[in-house]
Amino acid sequence: MTREPLLLTPGPTIVPPSVLEALGRPTDHHRTKEFQAVLKEVGEGLKKVFGTAQEVLILTSSGTGAMEAAVANLLSAGDEAIVIRGGKFGERWGEICEAFGATFTPVDPLWGKPLDLKALEQTLKQHPRAKAVFATLCETSAGVVFDIRGLRRAITAAGVPALLVVDAISGLGADSFAMDEMGVDVAVSGSQKGFMLPPGLAFIALSPRAWEAVSKSKSPRYYYDLNLAKKAWADTDTPWTPAISLIIGLKESLKIMLAKGIESFTAGHRADAEKLRADVQKMGLELYADPACASNAVTMIKVPAGVDGKELLKQIRAKHNIVIAGGQGKELVGKVIRIATMGAVGPAEIQAGLNAVEEVLAEMQVKNG
Amino acid sequence: MTREPLLLTPGPTIVPPSVLEALGRPTDHHRTKEFQAVLKEVGEGLKKVFGTAQEVLILTSSGTGAMEAAVANLLSAGDEAIVIRGGKFGERWGEICEAFGATFTPVDPLWGKPLDLKALEQTLKQHPRAKAVFATLCETSAGVVFDIRGLRRAITAAGVPALLVVDAISGLGADSFAMDEMGVDVAVSGSQKGFMLPPGLAFIALSPRAWEAVSKSKSPRYYYDLNLAKKAWADTDTPWTPAISLIIGLKESLKIMLAKGIESFTAGHRADAEKLRADVQKMGLELYADPACASNAVTMIKVPAGVDGKELLKQIRAKHNIVIAGGQGKELVGKVIRIATMGAVGPAEIQAGLNAVEEVLAEMQVKNG
Repeated sequence: MTREPLLLTPGPTIVPPSVLEALGRPTDHHRTKEFQAVLKEVGEGLKKVFGTAQEVLILTSSGTGAMEAAVANLLSAGDEAIVIRGGKFGERWGEICEAFGATFTPVDPLWGKPLDLKALEQTLKQHPRAKAVFATLCETSAGVVFDIRGLRRAITAAGVPALLVVDAISGLGADSFAMDEMGVDVAVSGSQKGFMLPPGLAFIALSPRAWEAVSKSKSPRYYYDLNLAKKAWADTDTPWTPAISLIIGLKESLKIMLAKGIESFTAGHRADAEKLRADVQKMGLELYADPACASNAVTMIKVPAGVDGKELLKQIRAKHNIVIAGGQGKELVGKVIRIATMGAVGPAEIQAGLNAVEEVLAEMQVKNG
Repeated sequence: MTREPLLLTPGPTIVPPSVLEALGRPTDHHRTKEFQAVLKEVGEGLKKVFGTAQEVLILTSSGTGAMEAAVANLLSAGDEAIVIRGGKFGERWGEICEAFGATFTPVDPLWGKPLDLKALEQTLKQHPRAKAVFATLCETSAGVVFDIRGLRRAITAAGVPALLVVDAISGLGADSFAMDEMGVDVAVSGSQKGFMLPPGLAFIALSPRAWEAVSKSKSPRYYYDLNLAKKAWADTDTPWTPAISLIIGLKESLKIMLAKGIESFTAGHRADAEKLRADVQKMGLELYADPACASNAVTMIKVPAGVDGKELLKQIRAKHNIVIAGGQGKELVGKVIRIATMGAVGPAEIQAGLNAVEEVLAEMQVKNG
């Protein structure tokens, strides 16, 4: 087997050939007209992907760095927040709030189930001083997509001024998202998911209201000081040396994402995910996420009783050179597998993944007798 | 002109072909045995480059992120520190201390001049509670290298327990450095200088005494929480998705750096820098840095009176496709140029740069009459 492993994981995702070619080009200097032209172009592209008229700032970090940037620039020690925790990444919002001395009230839907918007509204009414609601677009650890429009409606219905902050790291490009239209105040994303790049870049955009909060926040910050990033961006620059090669690659990946518009790109992944969910059920396997909130970025499948999910994935990698993700968190390790339908994968790759699952599962079940 | 620009800048530096090839390879997943083997290999290589028996942690960020990690993990608000500021990057240490609520006493050598070690010793005696001395190996904005052994001697002579923290972002691989032997407690570096990679990775290593300070520091931190990084590294992992492609590239660049040992690699750059300094003077041009502290990573040359240094560099780029850096900071913009002798450049590239300087300078001086 000499081909590279087929990644069907929810990040990193497969990087298309034109992007790989760009990543391997000799590096130019970042303070040149040539590179500024690239920054301008990717800046415009990012606005289209985010669905915002605001500037999208580029950070050199994992997506988690952009999450920290959101917390450190919006909140001060002692501030209150609401954190929606429907999986591992929702929990991360809470951990970052704690690290920065903010207190948060969790709203915890069951993993894989939709959020009770009425419960959120009630919590907001009980915590009218909450500065922000931290949410997740696609919670990859549970295979669910959150109803962002619904979150905004709940905040409005509660009559509180909380900002809506969305981790769109893995959903963007697969699950529908439109920052301005959905009433999102801060959106963050990362390069290694729907953007089809290697990890190393993060993105963050803020509404005018969120920028007001930045001016009031007193949390210590330097690398992630968004005022510095905003000031530099106004001169088509970044405050620190950016990950140049990844930005050159981003220019190519945005061409693919925006070739027919972001809605069309997202619709392609939606169709793939819908077919995958149907095929999984035809195989007699059970989906983990409630159909009412199944993400189009990643599909979580229950491993049949008696089968070790970790062993299943190990054999799929060994025999088919396909990488599928397992479950995250104590209760799900070995119990579920997760197939991503984002990045540069289409029906053929997804089918190959599903065939491998079916074949190895059959072999294991025969052995288990 | 179809070739890529020749970068003679002090970061980003030229990336060698074998590293470019690695950067353009399809991405593997980061939680696999294959990638763990890469992490193990680069971890061993980084220890050799740093000259330390300690683990060198890999961060996905610019070098500035690793500087923030040092401050945020060692100090708490209200702590005292000493900051050596002989240029823009020394000043950055002070800015980060301030951002995290630490107070610092500056020790400011004149730009381009050696540090008065006696003055440092006096300052330390006057501030015995200083938790750390923040210093720079190569201050690229002034073309100088600091005497790290001398700094450690001054701390010892002052009889204070301050930690020695060194920004070795641009010096490492060109200016001699050996963390353990020089008595350095924390060393940070970045990928886009001596490591011959695009920007996007930072490195940090801590002495056992520095790790003790980490356990006491109360500064808010999450992305740069070094305890999380240390814990993950013990399992050959990183707490957040790492910049996979850059780490694959790092494996290749370390092969080049360590082919004949790091001392030999550094000696090559030293020879190039010594020749460059001699050639510059033969051309009748003046060096900026005092010979007693001239860095082997970057050589700063004064632009002759009456010549606009910014125009000089613009024409060198336009006519020769060579990128040379200008001066940083109000007093030096347009007054100096900086040629790097680190990264994948050798005598031929440096000579080409110097020829271009000579030619364009002559043309400009003829025009100026």
